[in-house]
Amino acid sequence: MHERANIRRMAGYVPGERPAAPAVKLNTNENPLAPGDAVMRALSEITPAMLQRYPDPLATRLRSAIADYHECGVDRVIVTNGSDELLRLAVTTFGAPGHAIGLVEPGYSLYGVLAPIQDCPVARVALAGDWTSPTDLAARWNKAGAKLAFLANPQAPTGALLSARAIARLAAEFRGVLLVDEAYIDFVDPTQAHDIVSLIDQTANLLIVRTLSKGHSLAGLRLGYGLGRESLVTPMLTKVRDSYNVDVIAQHLGCAAFADMGHARTSWQLVREERDRVARELGDLGIVTLPSQANFLLADIPSAFGDAQTLHALLASQGVHVRWFDVPRLRGRLRISIGTRAENDQLLSAIEASLVVRTRCAS
Amino acid sequence: MHERANIRRMAGYVPGERPAAPAVKLNTNENPLAPGDAVMRALSEITPAMLQRYPDPLATRLRSAIADYHECGVDRVIVTNGSDELLRLAVTTFGAPGHAIGLVEPGYSLYGVLAPIQDCPVARVALAGDWTSPTDLAARWNKAGAKLAFLANPQAPTGALLSARAIARLAAEFRGVLLVDEAYIDFVDPTQAHDIVSLIDQTANLLIVRTLSKGHSLAGLRLGYGLGRESLVTPMLTKVRDSYNVDVIAQHLGCAAFADMGHARTSWQLVREERDRVARELGDLGIVTLPSQANFLLADIPSAFGDAQTLHALLASQGVHVRWFDVPRLRGRLRISIGTRAENDQLLSAIEASLVVRTRCAS
Repeated sequence: MHERANIRRMAGYVPGERPAAPAVKLNTNENPLAPGDAVMRALSEITPAMLQRYPDPLATRLRSAIADYHECGVDRVIVTNGSDELLRLAVTTFGAPGHAIGLVEPGYSLYGVLAPIQDCPVARVALAGDWTSPTDLAARWNKAGAKLAFLANPQAPTGALLSARAIARLAAEFRGVLLVDEAYIDFVDPTQAHDIVSLIDQTANLLIVRTLSKGHSLAGLRLGYGLGRESLVTPMLTKVRDSYNVDVIAQHLGCAAFADMGHARTSWQLVREERDRVARELGDLGIVTLPSQANFLLADIPSAFGDAQTLHALLASQGVHVRWFDVPRLRGRLRISIGTRAENDQLLSAIEASLVVRTRCAS
Repeated sequence: MHERANIRRMAGYVPGERPAAPAVKLNTNENPLAPGDAVMRALSEITPAMLQRYPDPLATRLRSAIADYHECGVDRVIVTNGSDELLRLAVTTFGAPGHAIGLVEPGYSLYGVLAPIQDCPVARVALAGDWTSPTDLAARWNKAGAKLAFLANPQAPTGALLSARAIARLAAEFRGVLLVDEAYIDFVDPTQAHDIVSLIDQTANLLIVRTLSKGHSLAGLRLGYGLGRESLVTPMLTKVRDSYNVDVIAQHLGCAAFADMGHARTSWQLVREERDRVARELGDLGIVTLPSQANFLLADIPSAFGDAQTLHALLASQGVHVRWFDVPRLRGRLRISIGTRAENDQLLSAIEASLVVRTRCAS
């Protein structure tokens, strides 16, 4: 065996299943709407000559569009082949072999998979009983010698939103690079007026990660980006990144997506409305969900439904796919992506039907 | 500064320039033809729903198409976001920090950039005076403790082809993973009957890298792949690779490219014919080129043209872009990609005109 020992020992990431269509796919947090006309028009503009030539290695036009959207300098923007690439670039650039990477637990499992590739141990800090981060989070990461820490916000899989003030304090206390993964940020209620991009000016160790997979309905295209001070962005942009990491089509469609935000905003509003409705109707069925600012709900499955794993399998057998995690604190729960109104109705009907079946069997 | 010391010290890769169109672009070895109808038809088949959902993380349909083309098992195939990604995956998976990566010199400069990202020194072995690899190449890599070595074949920037027998011997003698980068393999004259894919059965440490950038005119799409024994491919495929590394469009267009090889084969034949013609006509101008099996020529610029750097700049000023490398043994040469017949004519005219100008000035 030629692979390094740390890679031999580790297990790979397990992506969510891709059920054969037609199905109600609520297991991988995709946007309920398909991308809009502006993106599809941009796709029709791709010429043979564009495919023939190497793309702009620095993706300058797309980075400028993103910089305009966030009202920051273009040198504070890096675009990547999905945000997955950016998470990995951060590990390669800032995570020193043998030094810990800070995580919270439970959290997005990919973070814990990336660490051993770089031969980094992980410093996992458990969320409190009410799913909040402990106040000594940074101190515990510091004590473990972490050079880099990952924090999803809104958090996965709870959907909870940590305030900008809390993020600022965490970044100030943590001695390494704080990567805040905002994969679900577009679904936060605007009344929260949540924004941490403005923190970059005062915060040298804050790296914000975004994706077009969820908010812009482009999971298939693989397009993510990062925002941070030049001192963090430049080494990734000019040294560690594969030279032509974002293809010409993704660059072109990404520009189209930022030039027409209307379709995306419509999808965000739909998700918020349906998130509230699904939570309410699940509540009516006796299923409690955590307050979520993301495009999913973490649902606590009561014993009336049997256990969560069984309900997960039962729903799947009816073509309704949600996510069940075989990890502590999550085994009794299901993570349910917010779909279209029709998809959510199918989900709710299938859950209600399962209750009826169980009640009949029990009587 | 938060980046690791090895990354702070290193310099990034410098891609070839992208001149503003219109220009005769013969500096980055792209295919002279744009992709054909089959690929563009596949592009028109992309639906909003395909972009909305995550792609197949294992790219099974495309890997199967590639396996069929090479008559090997699908588990011996990995597809990547350009072959750049595969080169980097090999370094991450097989290149142990502190242990050397074997190179030949001169060679493709990217190899030497990837090594320090993994904190690996490089063991550079100089090509002989006639540009061939020294017979003790493997022994010298072994002596340096290399766990991985890179060899472009046809070689860059000479265009020379190392025989399958020589590759087999090198792999047998080298104790690490031998990565043979076949970026230019499609342009090899079929009369050579060159093939090393069949070596995989007997060679546990051979990793073959291919790209659709050159042979299939798809540099803008970013699509490469690797072939090797399962023991080499599986760790990269299931552990080190970003989960969704190849987007849905690249998977779909890649399948279309392999389903219709006719257009690609036409381009390969054009390159071979034009390669011979350009070499002959350069020879008529007193410019000697090395025998090339790739889609470029390495041209030795005689003093009648001034120096190579000056000629490079003069051609660029007329919109004809070729590549000049500021490294030992290459400073007196230009690397010229083979273009369309018309592009090559423009190149030859511009070179000839530069000679006339110099002759006039000298008289």
